Amino acid sequence: MSERVVVALGGNAILQRGQRGTAQEQMANVQHTVEQIVRMIEADYDVVLTHGNGPQVGATLIRHELGSVQIPAMSMDFCGAESQGFIGYMFVQSLSNSLREKGLEKHQPVCLVTRVEVDPHDQAFINPTKPVGPFYTQERALQRMSEKGETWIEDAGRGWRRVVPSPDPARIVESEVIRHLVNDGFVVIASGGGGIPVVVDHNGEYKGVEAVIDKDLAGERLAQEVEADIFMILTDVPQVAINYNTPRQKWLGVMSLREMEALEKEGHFKAGSMGPKVKACLRFVRNGGKRAVIASLEEAIEALQMKKGTQITH
Amino acid sequence: MSERVVVALGGNAILQRGQRGTAQEQMANVQHTVEQIVRMIEADYDVVLTHGNGPQVGATLIRHELGSVQIPAMSMDFCGAESQGFIGYMFVQSLSNSLREKGLEKHQPVCLVTRVEVDPHDQAFINPTKPVGPFYTQERALQRMSEKGETWIEDAGRGWRRVVPSPDPARIVESEVIRHLVNDGFVVIASGGGGIPVVVDHNGEYKGVEAVIDKDLAGERLAQEVEADIFMILTDVPQVAINYNTPRQKWLGVMSLREMEALEKEGHFKAGSMGPKVKACLRFVRNGGKRAVIASLEEAIEALQMKKGTQITH
Repeated sequence: MSERVVVALGGNAILQRGQRGTAQEQMANVQHTVEQIVRMIEADYDVVLTHGNGPQVGATLIRHELGSVQIPAMSMDFCGAESQGFIGYMFVQSLSNSLREKGLEKHQPVCLVTRVEVDPHDQAFINPTKPVGPFYTQERALQRMSEKGETWIEDAGRGWRRVVPSPDPARIVESEVIRHLVNDGFVVIASGGGGIPVVVDHNGEYKGVEAVIDKDLAGERLAQEVEADIFMILTDVPQVAINYNTPRQKWLGVMSLREMEALEKEGHFKAGSMGPKVKACLRFVRNGGKRAVIASLEEAIEALQMKKGTQITH
Repeated sequence: MSERVVVALGGNAILQRGQRGTAQEQMANVQHTVEQIVRMIEADYDVVLTHGNGPQVGATLIRHELGSVQIPAMSMDFCGAESQGFIGYMFVQSLSNSLREKGLEKHQPVCLVTRVEVDPHDQAFINPTKPVGPFYTQERALQRMSEKGETWIEDAGRGWRRVVPSPDPARIVESEVIRHLVNDGFVVIASGGGGIPVVVDHNGEYKGVEAVIDKDLAGERLAQEVEADIFMILTDVPQVAINYNTPRQKWLGVMSLREMEALEKEGHFKAGSMGPKVKACLRFVRNGGKRAVIASLEEAIEALQMKKGTQITH
């Protein structure tokens, strides 16, 4: 039996710092990422992919705002859906080509529009914290706050930025069809950008909400729901470190759940950095997953084989 | 055995003439459309949906152009992919809700990012004819022609408009996974906007192209590839007519392939109107399909039961 791995790809898998964000740049980065993924498929792992969409949905928000002089702008859930289509297209295209080149075309890629259900009573809706889109002037921020009821915060020296709720993912709405496709050998791309956030309202109906779900936490849900053996977060550092950039800096290799939980309690993993990644990994192992991995994109296959990265096991 | 039907939805299924194009308007139209689709599922048909994206991708093109002062604009294939995500989200959301309300939640909706392969030597690439996006001034059109090598044409009195190739769909790249999901009882939404147009280049790799595939012709391919019994085009007229708006006007009801081919040869179905719809239907029946239907969205279920619409059979 092949082992099943859900891979959550960080922003650097699609867009590098300092790039402008042309389609060509993004496609080239995706191609590079896909080469790592194809090595996993070659090594007989069943792979499910998910990815972030920060810079892409940021670009979409700008386009919707600048376009609003002619056509109505749309809310975050619609913008997220657009980014799933666009990023998903890059991945299926690149995977089709790379898999065919390696003679692995029986593993066909498929990208699904994916919704993720959140609790409408999640505390995040009371206290929005996730910055989205570009920085604006105070004037523009105040205008948006009064016109649209949005929340904007000032980032000293850089300007004003919109913040939206980042609720906890409760359930992948499309999990049954995803599980189904993975079982039948397809390489599924799902829950892009953390998924399109929806709640079930008082009539029992799904309704989109203005929020962004952390893609690593959504990836953990996905990993649970497809019964993955391994949950792997690929980012731009080789391992998790504690006391980073101090004389006591220490890279973490193979760690037990208990050891990692102890470090988390001591406050080593910050919200704006490794916090959500470590949290997602701990959840996965706590919920019965075999192993969670945080590693760099470049060392993905070695990390999968336990030679690199931070490994969290029982 | 349930009969399998591929339904190609026209523009009016998502956006009505004269509407501004807010998310709320589009979601309400989709909800109305989905009520018709759910009646088909209730009547035990296996349904696969495809849809146009003209006004939506038009809006996307405007956003990319106006946004290009800050972030790079993307080509038609990327814009089409965005529209598949956005429109697909509206359909899965609305279908989930309506199916649950009717106690039909075992029929789960799923939307796939779908590519459609076209021939790189298709004559359409030499002679672009499909207008996309809004009207512009001559100055802007000339600028785009010289800067980007695009083709623009003048429409007397209304301004200049970009035209792109509209090649014939050769193959739905995702057909295997679609067939698979339909066989297993999912309500699949695929090939939105005629699909993301791709060619296979001289290296044997898929590559996106700047083109728009007619959604009815792509729908016919989809119907063939999922082995549908019925191919149905829903639009805003109750039937196909000949000599429309003349004293000799005649609505067409149940027609044989041969009768309809004869009318087509006589030039009754114009390129800008019923031409591609009739062409797609004739292809479907000629290729062995049981029945093709052109009907109004409002009379969809009656047309499926042969009580309304234009029916083309052997």
